[in-house]
Amino acid sequence: MADNTQILLRERPKGKLEESHFELRQAPMPVPSDGQLLLRTILLSQDAANRAWMQGATYKSAVEEGDVMHGYALSEVVESRAPDYSPGDLVFAESGWQEYAALDARAVGRAPDHRPLTHLISVLGVAGKTAYHGLLDVSGIEAGETLLVSAAAGSVGSLVGQIGKLKGARVVGVAGGPEKCGWVVDTLGFDACIDYKGEDVSAAIAEHCPRGVDVYFDNVGGAVLQAALFAMNDHGRISCCGAVSMYDGGPLTGPVGVPGLIVIKRLRLEGFIVSDFADRDAEAERDLAAWAADGRLVVVEDVIEGLENAPRGLIGLLAGENRGKRMIRVAPDPR
Amino acid sequence: MADNTQILLRERPKGKLEESHFELRQAPMPVPSDGQLLLRTILLSQDAANRAWMQGATYKSAVEEGDVMHGYALSEVVESRAPDYSPGDLVFAESGWQEYAALDARAVGRAPDHRPLTHLISVLGVAGKTAYHGLLDVSGIEAGETLLVSAAAGSVGSLVGQIGKLKGARVVGVAGGPEKCGWVVDTLGFDACIDYKGEDVSAAIAEHCPRGVDVYFDNVGGAVLQAALFAMNDHGRISCCGAVSMYDGGPLTGPVGVPGLIVIKRLRLEGFIVSDFADRDAEAERDLAAWAADGRLVVVEDVIEGLENAPRGLIGLLAGENRGKRMIRVAPDPR
Repeated sequence: MADNTQILLRERPKGKLEESHFELRQAPMPVPSDGQLLLRTILLSQDAANRAWMQGATYKSAVEEGDVMHGYALSEVVESRAPDYSPGDLVFAESGWQEYAALDARAVGRAPDHRPLTHLISVLGVAGKTAYHGLLDVSGIEAGETLLVSAAAGSVGSLVGQIGKLKGARVVGVAGGPEKCGWVVDTLGFDACIDYKGEDVSAAIAEHCPRGVDVYFDNVGGAVLQAALFAMNDHGRISCCGAVSMYDGGPLTGPVGVPGLIVIKRLRLEGFIVSDFADRDAEAERDLAAWAADGRLVVVEDVIEGLENAPRGLIGLLAGENRGKRMIRVAPDPR
Repeated sequence: MADNTQILLRERPKGKLEESHFELRQAPMPVPSDGQLLLRTILLSQDAANRAWMQGATYKSAVEEGDVMHGYALSEVVESRAPDYSPGDLVFAESGWQEYAALDARAVGRAPDHRPLTHLISVLGVAGKTAYHGLLDVSGIEAGETLLVSAAAGSVGSLVGQIGKLKGARVVGVAGGPEKCGWVVDTLGFDACIDYKGEDVSAAIAEHCPRGVDVYFDNVGGAVLQAALFAMNDHGRISCCGAVSMYDGGPLTGPVGVPGLIVIKRLRLEGFIVSDFADRDAEAERDLAAWAADGRLVVVEDVIEGLENAPRGLIGLLAGENRGKRMIRVAPDPR
């Protein structure tokens, strides 16, 4: 039987993630036991959180040295030893960075029948639902309010800002570099985008958010969160989605002004992860699919071919080279 | 006519507050204009926030050099040039650190008829309502949950912990020094109290909160907030009431772990000030008065005689020398 190509975390990174921290190897094809499914990975999601998983336990256990690198995937059932699944079924699974995985059927979720399949990783996947729930269910946004979004060109931020515009907010992004910022405004339709690499972020927030910031959707933490805290309006809300500025060897420090500004301005900071809102996923999927279908949401995907390119893809994502949702195509679409 | 003794902020402190930053002077008796009241200060509240007001605008404008020091008071109407008030009426007012003040009637609030009058500054005043709303309306607390309270011997903390016990929570305080901690347990009825000056706070939280912390009521910020963040349970709530560790020349830095821990644990941090809950004050006053009357709340007051002792009183409060609600008696009870 064929081998199973896997990528391991060879060594836990101490500073910046490098390709040498990974190792590609051939392993025997996994054999599903009773109640399990043999899955073939089609599309592998790449997320900044993958880097955080290497540092220690988060909302899931840490990736240990020698483990197949963890990752969410859209996978096809190749062989089923569980009653509810048949070969050819599509599922969401924590398959990891490998061609094949044998997982308990209870640990996977059935994927809806939707083409292109890439949408199941982007707008209808974790990225889209994170944007949807994090903006609409965590912080809320009202027409006429000002929404600030960091990592605005990224998988989640690009959707958060567009959903904010759909809801009638003024939307200002933060991204790295003038070209990316121009693209955020021209292609995604944000009202403005601040280049954190080239501009004084505090001054630029003041300029582009003349009525202050009502909601800040935070993907990055660090200096941008600090600048946002000072720009928040009283009773402002901050959706804490991620802290990518600190994942890849960045300093583990918080912004100045916590908790003084939280008290004075009566801010609400709220962390979330997408699975907390599973009971609202059906509504999210319906809205997101409708908005993508009629063009109100521009869905931006950044698909890299080949499992062997996953390390390079994640390293580049952490450096901010992607626009929209980065994923790895591990196998062609079935059927 | 008699003079009006006042205490000014002579110089804005750069580091620790000292008596030399204040100046006592005699001013002419103020004369109320149309729509104003001439008020005599009876009891002057002393609050850690007074120190924060000296540094810059907060939820109110800053105290400027040369200003009469700002402060909340229970005052008696001496002369009324407004329709709804008569001499002898008791009011809550931002009278400041002086014997007499002339204020717009619209800027004061009528005080309920309640003896002892000191309760109107402690359990039925800003301290009591801050504890009530901050615990019950901001973070909520359920029977069986674990509540951690910093500045546990202070005006607000002493009440927060007792209200937590009333609601069936396990309540652990944090205070300075073994004697104060013993008093918090023995007199206020907390389940445990951690001495932040003598104990490893993280280890002590782990010991006394074996099921983690569900709600942290934060009066101090800084290192205790940091330790609390690491001890919070998933979906934990933090009521951000104050940051006294940073007010008196402390470093303006936030705890390590923000916002990473907020995301991972899906925490909600929420700042508040008591006036945000004015529409719930009647219920708060009714509950607090009932609990104090039947002894379920131990009301601890620390009354210092004489306006001239206000600077010393505030400096001592910032150093943590008070137990319960510190106030200055400026004039005897009327009637």
